[in-house]
Amino acid sequence: MRALVYHGPGQKSWEEVPDPAILKPTDAIVKVETTTICGTDLHILKGDVPAVIDGRILGHEGVGTITEVGSAVTDLAVGDRVIISCISSCGKCIYCKQGVYSHCQAAEGAPGIGWIFGHLIDGTQAEYVRVPFAETSLYRVPEGVRDELAVLISDILPTGHEIGVQYGAVRPGDVVAVIGAGPVGLAAITTAGLYGPSRVIAVDLDANRVEMAKSFGATDGVVASDSDWREQIIAMTDGLGVDVSIEAVGVPATWDMALAVVRPAGHVANVGVHGKPVEFPLDKAWIENLTITTGLVNTDSSPMLIKLLAQGKLDVGGFISHRFKLDEIIEAYDVFGRAAETKALKVVMAV
Amino acid sequence: MRALVYHGPGQKSWEEVPDPAILKPTDAIVKVETTTICGTDLHILKGDVPAVIDGRILGHEGVGTITEVGSAVTDLAVGDRVIISCISSCGKCIYCKQGVYSHCQAAEGAPGIGWIFGHLIDGTQAEYVRVPFAETSLYRVPEGVRDELAVLISDILPTGHEIGVQYGAVRPGDVVAVIGAGPVGLAAITTAGLYGPSRVIAVDLDANRVEMAKSFGATDGVVASDSDWREQIIAMTDGLGVDVSIEAVGVPATWDMALAVVRPAGHVANVGVHGKPVEFPLDKAWIENLTITTGLVNTDSSPMLIKLLAQGKLDVGGFISHRFKLDEIIEAYDVFGRAAETKALKVVMAV
Amino acid sequence: MRALVYHGPGQKSWEEVPDPAILKPTDAIVKVETTTICGTDLHILKGDVPAVIDGRILGHEGVGTITEVGSAVTDLAVGDRVIISCISSCGKCIYCKQGVYSHCQAAEGAPGIGWIFGHLIDGTQAEYVRVPFAETSLYRVPEGVRDELAVLISDILPTGHEIGVQYGAVRPGDVVAVIGAGPVGLAAITTAGLYGPSRVIAVDLDANRVEMAKSFGATDGVVASDSDWREQIIAMTDGLGVDVSIEAVGVPATWDMALAVVRPAGHVANVGVHGKPVEFPLDKAWIENLTITTGLVNTDSSPMLIKLLAQGKLDVGGFISHRFKLDEIIEAYDVFGRAAETKALKVVMAV
Amino acid sequence: MRALVYHGPGQKSWEEVPDPAILKPTDAIVKVETTTICGTDLHILKGDVPAVIDGRILGHEGVGTITEVGSAVTDLAVGDRVIISCISSCGKCIYCKQGVYSHCQAAEGAPGIGWIFGHLIDGTQAEYVRVPFAETSLYRVPEGVRDELAVLISDILPTGHEIGVQYGAVRPGDVVAVIGAGPVGLAAITTAGLYGPSRVIAVDLDANRVEMAKSFGATDGVVASDSDWREQIIAMTDGLGVDVSIEAVGVPATWDMALAVVRPAGHVANVGVHGKPVEFPLDKAWIENLTITTGLVNTDSSPMLIKLLAQGKLDVGGFISHRFKLDEIIEAYDVFGRAAETKALKVVMAV
Repeated sequence: MRALVYHGPGQKSWEEVPDPAILKPTDAIVKVETTTICGTDLHILKGDVPAVIDGRILGHEGVGTITEVGSAVTDLAVGDRVIISCISSCGKCIYCKQGVYSHCQAAEGAPGIGWIFGHLIDGTQAEYVRVPFAETSLYRVPEGVRDELAVLISDILPTGHEIGVQYGAVRPGDVVAVIGAGPVGLAAITTAGLYGPSRVIAVDLDANRVEMAKSFGATDGVVASDSDWREQIIAMTDGLGVDVSIEAVGVPATWDMALAVVRPAGHVANVGVHGKPVEFPLDKAWIENLTITTGLVNTDSSPMLIKLLAQGKLDVGGFISHRFKLDEIIEAYDVFGRAAETKALKVVMAV
Repeated sequence: MRALVYHGPGQKSWEEVPDPAILKPTDAIVKVETTTICGTDLHILKGDVPAVIDGRILGHEGVGTITEVGSAVTDLAVGDRVIISCISSCGKCIYCKQGVYSHCQAAEGAPGIGWIFGHLIDGTQAEYVRVPFAETSLYRVPEGVRDELAVLISDILPTGHEIGVQYGAVRPGDVVAVIGAGPVGLAAITTAGLYGPSRVIAVDLDANRVEMAKSFGATDGVVASDSDWREQIIAMTDGLGVDVSIEAVGVPATWDMALAVVRPAGHVANVGVHGKPVEFPLDKAWIENLTITTGLVNTDSSPMLIKLLAQGKLDVGGFISHRFKLDEIIEAYDVFGRAAETKALKVVMAV
Repeated sequence: MRALVYHGPGQKSWEEVPDPAILKPTDAIVKVETTTICGTDLHILKGDVPAVIDGRILGHEGVGTITEVGSAVTDLAVGDRVIISCISSCGKCIYCKQGVYSHCQAAEGAPGIGWIFGHLIDGTQAEYVRVPFAETSLYRVPEGVRDELAVLISDILPTGHEIGVQYGAVRPGDVVAVIGAGPVGLAAITTAGLYGPSRVIAVDLDANRVEMAKSFGATDGVVASDSDWREQIIAMTDGLGVDVSIEAVGVPATWDMALAVVRPAGHVANVGVHGKPVEFPLDKAWIENLTITTGLVNTDSSPMLIKLLAQGKLDVGGFISHRFKLDEIIEAYDVFGRAAETKALKVVMAV
Repeated sequence: MRALVYHGPGQKSWEEVPDPAILKPTDAIVKVETTTICGTDLHILKGDVPAVIDGRILGHEGVGTITEVGSAVTDLAVGDRVIISCISSCGKCIYCKQGVYSHCQAAEGAPGIGWIFGHLIDGTQAEYVRVPFAETSLYRVPEGVRDELAVLISDILPTGHEIGVQYGAVRPGDVVAVIGAGPVGLAAITTAGLYGPSRVIAVDLDANRVEMAKSFGATDGVVASDSDWREQIIAMTDGLGVDVSIEAVGVPATWDMALAVVRPAGHVANVGVHGKPVEFPLDKAWIENLTITTGLVNTDSSPMLIKLLAQGKLDVGGFISHRFKLDEIIEAYDVFGRAAETKALKVVMAV
């Protein structure tokens, strides 16, 4: 088959590789029909994730059809159309039993981290992919849900929802600020709407993104380069700050911003993938009764999100900015990598 | 009357001052019969809390008898014996209505912070004290509860309980580490027992304190100067770390320790009062699904703790290490200030 | 002033009565500018609520302007425009401190029940009304919120929201059935939308009401007289029943219906005011892992609902079916009493 | 092998039957080394559970050693010592993924009810038993935990804990009444202690049981035949009733008692297995803001309870009233069946 293979920092190619095979009785093989690119894939290509070795097939998002199942797989069958979760979860360890699939203790490669596709095992940017723990890591695509929307369930929508909105504990009436209006920030903005906020404020350096965020459910927008960006946000509250502040970028400056606008007893939910430590002003924060959360997605909310998609209650068509054929993936990476210029959100590749 | 008055860094005196008077209809005057000293009082004396001005009467803990009430006070009467909460709460603002009394928006001096006694208004280390919002800031002492135990409800027990144990979300079966076995750490250790933990591990530099913590409910102890202190703690878990890590000191080193022993998806509850920012290794923590909390006590759990005290279900006699007469308060400060040497926990002064 | 006075079962008159006066320092007098009629008022007129005595002014909903405040009222002032909550809450008792204002232990007339207007003290269907515990029982009307929408906050919206939706624990993705599409059922339907349900099914004997419910947020409707009403509902789920079943009528038949459609581990929230006991098939239900709730509204969510109203995030204009002048109240009762025929929902009377 | 076989109402025999065999790849065979008898077994023998057919091996509790595993079982091995959960759970269906194993949709015999041993498939009162979904239905016995205590994890401890204490939402400071001091009531009493109640009141018709309950953690006892039993309970509260009322018998009279003592906004947790409907006075209860729960045990708390057992934090030795050899099971049933006379709690049979 053909797959996108990582060959060290800056090096990737769409090349011929051996087809994957069932290795364990709980595996399935899925023919990938739709896949997409995540910001994390770009990080890997920069060499920021040393655990990814030369020869690794990239990608952790996908929708496709099962072509083979291991002997222990009884709930899924060849021909089933499925969403591949970015998290591989055994369903039986102490973490999985509590829904914290992100820290599955049985995950291959590095027990304790459920994200292994395109990281510790071969991923989904390929014609076929082997899926460990198939029964607890694949979700059937319901009738009437288009592949390019279903693939948003692999990672981006549950990430914004679980790590941003749920960990942030958004409740009806809340004012929510989302720092960063890239794909994951937009996923938080969209899914925040499921919790009845009074305002969802999109904050970004790029005025276009701020404006665009309104079509994803933001009620207000603030351009982060405005000198009075903080005052603008505070003015949208009762003067005390936002109830929930969601960091969706992953750099110290945006962490600082998230802290700067949250009210006493508010929540700061960090979704961004950070590359270095941050300063935490605990000399001021000790008295603020804050709750700060971090996290890798669990995808435990995926069945619920799929249900809403199938009912037409989640309007996410706007996430798909560009469409390619699967074998145009190198071009797709180029477009996604120049997102500021191409205005790419999710670039989707389909067979 | 006589009171302990702050006169700038390092300066205090037990001196004659005017009696307090009712200033607002919701005030009460309480004759202080028992009071105690908090670590925060020592910080103030060092000059670490600039908002405390020369002439301020110190102290925010006390038990006594009401001698006068304002015209709007109908639920309390002269002669009632009461616990003075360290937090003054109006009971009507948006924060008080949610039980977050620590951020009462109507507090005198600095709206937004409920801790004002011995800080922004005159405190309890005096023969009499004016109590704002009396009906929502005083709690009746039940029959049969000794004053020196009741005074623990002013601050130390609810602080350990709410900011340590409740914010830490201790649940049955949890392994809990408490970093710092001083009074507030011991309050967390004692009240953690209300939530069915499988282990409560006391961690401190002082081996005597670690040992003593066991009489407050710690099941295990680790001396923080041991080179393998972390390994000792991890060995008391399933190898993944503690469920809840409570920081009860307030310096960067103990913050680091609290983070170092918590398991994925665990809780870090910061109780310590910090004087400088800390480093937060978000480059590692982003993927750890942590919940980190901070806070000033709300005292919303005080009625419950009083109920348990009255039922004899909270064994806290051990907190009282030294007893003085109220006018021996200068000596009491000396003993409390040399705690490492005197083994002082709570020094109590009574009339 | 003029007021609607109850004179025993079936007897009411719009008549001249003495103006109310401040009785306690925590009282306020409000000039009623908008009021409405509740189903409970009809029950009272039938003689179903014996605690209501001859001479009682009816009504527990209203919006108006403060004309006088007691000496202890400092947070509100003459001239303030306010919503009168149907629940009078002291803000200080053990129940009020937990937000359970419905069982305020200090309520006049019958300590333990917060609903006293038009029941145990004179009510709001009058030109003026005395409001006990004014600071904790009145809410300011924000700029830009019309009186006829604000008056929905007195009772109907928080009742549907708190006792139906919140007690029913509606979560994103849930399928919710609301049995009874009268005003309170519609309030549950509308506010359920704040919690991201996948479906909200309106169930009523009246096909018109079922249809109308869709403009209040119902996604589906079932006519209860259809012989296969239950099958229709179950078919809208995965075959196991609804996640949340809200009873909004108050008779044994609708209680039975609510139980009949709920799935294992689902919630049944009773909102209806019942006049007789019901049968509870515990021989079947013991194994069903059900949660069943009942309740009088607390109005603790009123500030949040007001915030959403002010932000234009709660579309409730459709509740107002008829408008009258305050002195046309007898005619308004007639229209509201013949709701099946007049299609009355909320009839509003304004000065 | 030998097993206790049901032969219709009133008929049972300890007889030779074929050994069980692996039927599905997820099965395991366990050699039963310790088992016990549940009140439900007596109900079955009376013919109250028609789904149990002639020829069925009884019993749903047991501890033993794995002798064979199916091809898909990788986390358990021959020789492992395990606790057999009374609930068989697939770990993958929508209910299991939420921890509601009691309603596992994949359970053999009657999808939707996780209790199948000794009910819909052959049970544990035998020398060997086939265990479906072994990996998600067996729990390893930790070092140092005696079999006769471990077997309490099969059903009785999690039932009292989950359906009584957790569903009843016991919190620190609560006053809890447990109606019925038989084994399951005592299990609720013992595990309530994990949640810091101020009082746990045992209520039973049998004064001996009431007294004995105190050695299981009850702080108070009330004999239900006292004419003032209710007044006695209310006097142990603030006059308003208990916070949590746990029904642990299963007849209309005890359901009535549970409702009679609960305070407004309190919880009633039904644990008893009922044989007929009850009356629910919704005409009074609609205004009481009650939460009422029912349920079959999930055993999702079993790992936590095992952890506490292993740490010596759960004192449950008193549950074992009688010990027999496995082949003395007929005699054991006789003793257990005459519990009022023999004072039997749990009778344990071991090889």
